[in-house]
Amino acid sequence: MPSPEFTATAIQNLIEEVHDRLRGRREGKVADYIPELAKADPEDFGIVVATADGHIYAVGDSDKEFTIQSISKPFAYGLALKLLGREHMHTKVGVEPSGEAFNAISLDPVSGIPRNPMINAGAIATAAQIWQHNPEAAEATLLGFLSDLAGRPLHVDENVYSSERDTGHRNRAISHLLRNFDVIESDPEGGLDLYFRQCAIAVSCRDLAIMAASLACQGRNPISGAEPLNADITIQMLALMGSCGMYDYAGQWLHDVGMPAKSGVGGGVLAVVPGRLGVAVYSPRLDPFGNSVRGIEVCEELSKRHGLHLYNQNPRAINTIRRSYTGSHRRSRRWRDATEVGILEKLGSRIRVVHAQGVLDFAATEQLLAELTAIAGQASVVVVDFNQVLELPPTSCSILLGQVALLRAKPITVLLSRADHLPSLAGLDHGLPTLPTIDAALEEAETILLQKERPELPSLQAPQPTILDGLDPDYRAILNPLLELTGFRAGEPAVQRNQSGDTLYIVVDGIFTTRIRLNLSNGTKKATRLSTFSSGMCFGEIGFLTGQPRTADVIADTDGHCLLLRREALDNLGRSRPEVVIALLRALSSELGSKLASASYQLTLLEHY
Amino acid sequence: MPSPEFTATAIQNLIEEVHDRLRGRREGKVADYIPELAKADPEDFGIVVATADGHIYAVGDSDKEFTIQSISKPFAYGLALKLLGREHMHTKVGVEPSGEAFNAISLDPVSGIPRNPMINAGAIATAAQIWQHNPEAAEATLLGFLSDLAGRPLHVDENVYSSERDTGHRNRAISHLLRNFDVIESDPEGGLDLYFRQCAIAVSCRDLAIMAASLACQGRNPISGAEPLNADITIQMLALMGSCGMYDYAGQWLHDVGMPAKSGVGGGVLAVVPGRLGVAVYSPRLDPFGNSVRGIEVCEELSKRHGLHLYNQNPRAINTIRRSYTGSHRRSRRWRDATEVGILEKLGSRIRVVHAQGVLDFAATEQLLAELTAIAGQASVVVVDFNQVLELPPTSCSILLGQVALLRAKPITVLLSRADHLPSLAGLDHGLPTLPTIDAALEEAETILLQKERPELPSLQAPQPTILDGLDPDYRAILNPLLELTGFRAGEPAVQRNQSGDTLYIVVDGIFTTRIRLNLSNGTKKATRLSTFSSGMCFGEIGFLTGQPRTADVIADTDGHCLLLRREALDNLGRSRPEVVIALLRALSSELGSKLASASYQLTLLEHY
Repeated sequence: MPSPEFTATAIQNLIEEVHDRLRGRREGKVADYIPELAKADPEDFGIVVATADGHIYAVGDSDKEFTIQSISKPFAYGLALKLLGREHMHTKVGVEPSGEAFNAISLDPVSGIPRNPMINAGAIATAAQIWQHNPEAAEATLLGFLSDLAGRPLHVDENVYSSERDTGHRNRAISHLLRNFDVIESDPEGGLDLYFRQCAIAVSCRDLAIMAASLACQGRNPISGAEPLNADITIQMLALMGSCGMYDYAGQWLHDVGMPAKSGVGGGVLAVVPGRLGVAVYSPRLDPFGNSVRGIEVCEELSKRHGLHLYNQNPRAINTIRRSYTGSHRRSRRWRDATEVGILEKLGSRIRVVHAQGVLDFAATEQLLAELTAIAGQASVVVVDFNQVLELPPTSCSILLGQVALLRAKPITVLLSRADHLPSLAGLDHGLPTLPTIDAALEEAETILLQKERPELPSLQAPQPTILDGLDPDYRAILNPLLELTGFRAGEPAVQRNQSGDTLYIVVDGIFTTRIRLNLSNGTKKATRLSTFSSGMCFGEIGFLTGQPRTADVIADTDGHCLLLRREALDNLGRSRPEVVIALLRALSSELGSKLASASYQLTLLEHY
Repeated sequence: MPSPEFTATAIQNLIEEVHDRLRGRREGKVADYIPELAKADPEDFGIVVATADGHIYAVGDSDKEFTIQSISKPFAYGLALKLLGREHMHTKVGVEPSGEAFNAISLDPVSGIPRNPMINAGAIATAAQIWQHNPEAAEATLLGFLSDLAGRPLHVDENVYSSERDTGHRNRAISHLLRNFDVIESDPEGGLDLYFRQCAIAVSCRDLAIMAASLACQGRNPISGAEPLNADITIQMLALMGSCGMYDYAGQWLHDVGMPAKSGVGGGVLAVVPGRLGVAVYSPRLDPFGNSVRGIEVCEELSKRHGLHLYNQNPRAINTIRRSYTGSHRRSRRWRDATEVGILEKLGSRIRVVHAQGVLDFAATEQLLAELTAIAGQASVVVVDFNQVLELPPTSCSILLGQVALLRAKPITVLLSRADHLPSLAGLDHGLPTLPTIDAALEEAETILLQKERPELPSLQAPQPTILDGLDPDYRAILNPLLELTGFRAGEPAVQRNQSGDTLYIVVDGIFTTRIRLNLSNGTKKATRLSTFSSGMCFGEIGFLTGQPRTADVIADTDGHCLLLRREALDNLGRSRPEVVIALLRALSSELGSKLASASYQLTLLEHY
């Protein structure tokens, strides 16, 4: 959920500084074509930035209400697309820039429909479509829609509405012309009245910024989480704002500022940086095009000084490969015996692990596929980790699976890791093993590599030499009677957290795993494994040596057996045959020392991946 | 360097599939206004995609040459901006869409200059400016510029040139009109001739795709690395292509396809996905607007099916915070004694580490600052790691430093880590400690926290209890004569790699560090530390216990002393006083076991950060 409270002071200072610098600009003139608009205070000046993360930075008259006017046009068109569909609306209003003023009666010479929904003729035709769709509910639907985008209930300023209605002769003329050309099919008064009411909706600069941020988020209000629009319609609205949003200043605007934007004669301007943020400015003094003078300056300033131009997309900003390394660079936490460690040291580079990240759109997917192609030559097993992948659109998913099929044909084994949060993958019967943790995926990759590269090796679960096997046979004979062979069923705990520990476990067969609960920094706890032991390895040595309580559970993952040696037996033996105890402790210390060296090496390497 | 060879087969298959599907489309008509163009084979069809990473996917007639025609217009305008500057060019050609056909003689009613550089009048005015700037060199400059963008030497097709020159009456008329309005200040023939030659430059579909990719990369050719354009001019070119690139189809194009694009009557189309990739299509059959029929279909298909629309920006695509965790979740590899470990366990959450990533543009910087704000409440020391930050523009850098100044005033200590690759930070005298590795930054943060939170603690380098101090005083008295107190100078090796090891080192004072060379998966080796030991800790235990050769160097970081115990002394003592040896080995094993548990815990945690 968004946290508007965590706004950064340095960004707030920046907005305040821009506000301060431009406050002195007094060019332009408040709209006076109706008396209600002329009442606006020319000194009013508010700036609000709302980010895609739901942070809000506001300065000046950010909560003062004024009428939305033409800024309602792209939104009404979006609602019409939502209610009536794109195909229908394209028969009523075009999408070509007219290069003309907002009040031009610009009908397409061929089709006879208004050139676009941003000029009054197109906006009136759009309102008429919404009204015709459901005359009773039209106003409530429109108000509800805009309220969802702004995140608070909006209302119509009745004074401005009456004033516009009583003096809107030109707009009335336009609506009758549209009726004449059958763009409006019935009495034009209903749609015209809705248009007057739509333009008279009262909004604050903060409302407009949140509406702009909702467009930046593909139709999702980043503060409330409401989704009054989908990505498709939002894209169409932004494209129209991009080409026709700033009246006959649109070309220059796209060139200089490069943010899809819309202004209104009430003094508002909103601009969108798609995927990033929304900006709104309120300052009633207008230039001859009908755009807020300070509004344009603020947007120009932000675009130029802070690189917000739509076409200013840094190619380095896509960075799909979070990490890419080999099985020599990272091991699973399953401890392996010396033979296996030797094989993995020699052949570990045939395991390749690629962590992807971000939104896997077409270009990002291409990066991932190129990486998979680049590493395929040396790989026997490839793990693709999706933990940091935020979205995998279905088209990208099918391209990715196509590439995976090619890898498998080589043949390379492909494992997926941490992909359950991606519906496009989870919903498919792709037949690829998907492991819940990167550690489990690494373990599986190691096991597959060991089996693949050395089929003549004994089964991995067969008994392996233990620390006892390195001892003098005489010593071994002395120790044997002290060792208790104990069986464990899969799921059974061998060691339990907080219990007193006095026993060393030497694994004969089976798999045993230390499980702990991690405290993560977001306050959650997560059950995970610390390490896994198989035949030949020891666990429980700290309790055995010091008597300290156990710090973690050790569970049998499979049925298995351990040789148990108790501290008391060790103590007794220390008195009768100390040289045997010394040999055992040397072997144990030396195993722990090697494991520590290996773990330290892993920790060091991880810093680089 | 880019590796075009690592292209992904699944992407190649996709392009081939689109090519296959659209090959049957035979609508449209080859341009025939000059005989040379009419010779084109209407069946020709090539598609090339070039990515910002320098990968190329080509299918069909991708290397066949044809003339560039109007696709040269945005490039010539870019060259004019480069040679003559924006201010000058704006007095000669406008930037508003005309909503008219390519050959309209569309001069602005107020200023008398052509509406934009994409219509013939604007393109001729642009060529005239380039020619006037240096008549002798103009053609070579233009050809060299386009060749740099395409990555191979281009030439003029002399037959097409002669044909265009001999029949270009309308363009000759336009140039004289421009002379009449003083948009061209001298004899118009030179500029007109350059324009004819510019349109007759022979290119392949591959050339156009690389040129488009160069525009996607802010003016840098992603294959050759040449930078014939800067980001500023590239943005202006893209803005013009976005609003006026597809003749009078531009509005519909921006709406439906949403890629800045340019077509030519030779049958070529290029389209740009800024920051991502370039697409080019060659297919000579044209629609009534003069655009390649299949060219438009390919772009529509790619845009709609693969989300390449410029306004389709996923808000989740910015993901500035790579990791964010506390000092309880990750420790430096400096081993600490029990007191220090206790303090860090209790207070480690007052250390906050934030790893940023990607391009820190305005919105990304805002995300980073919001994270810094969110964590500031609980933090005493904040580490900001820049290792994965690809770019930090100067404006973002100053905003970031503004926020850092606010943190420091709280007061919170701020450390930077791995920031040397960012010129905007490296060039400033910001006074912030900048550590070369995240491990060094963590160690520094821990040391600062220890000093800050417990100023009454003894100096961190003062002697601390060793494993010997846990032993029975009688045993200690027996061991004392066997220990050799040895001093080391800063920089001196205590242990050397590959030498035989028979000695255990117990640190009395000073700092000792195990240094290793990591083999990274990109083939490089990197010297780094494995772990650092200070007073009270042991190192060298594996060689001491087993006699195996040393696997790493241990160097004294500061002047210091160790107690040395040799294996021979241990062996002798084992015979005379085995109980002392047993006690020592138990203490040693138990220390190693604790360190291993801690390292395993760190390894497990790192998976989550």
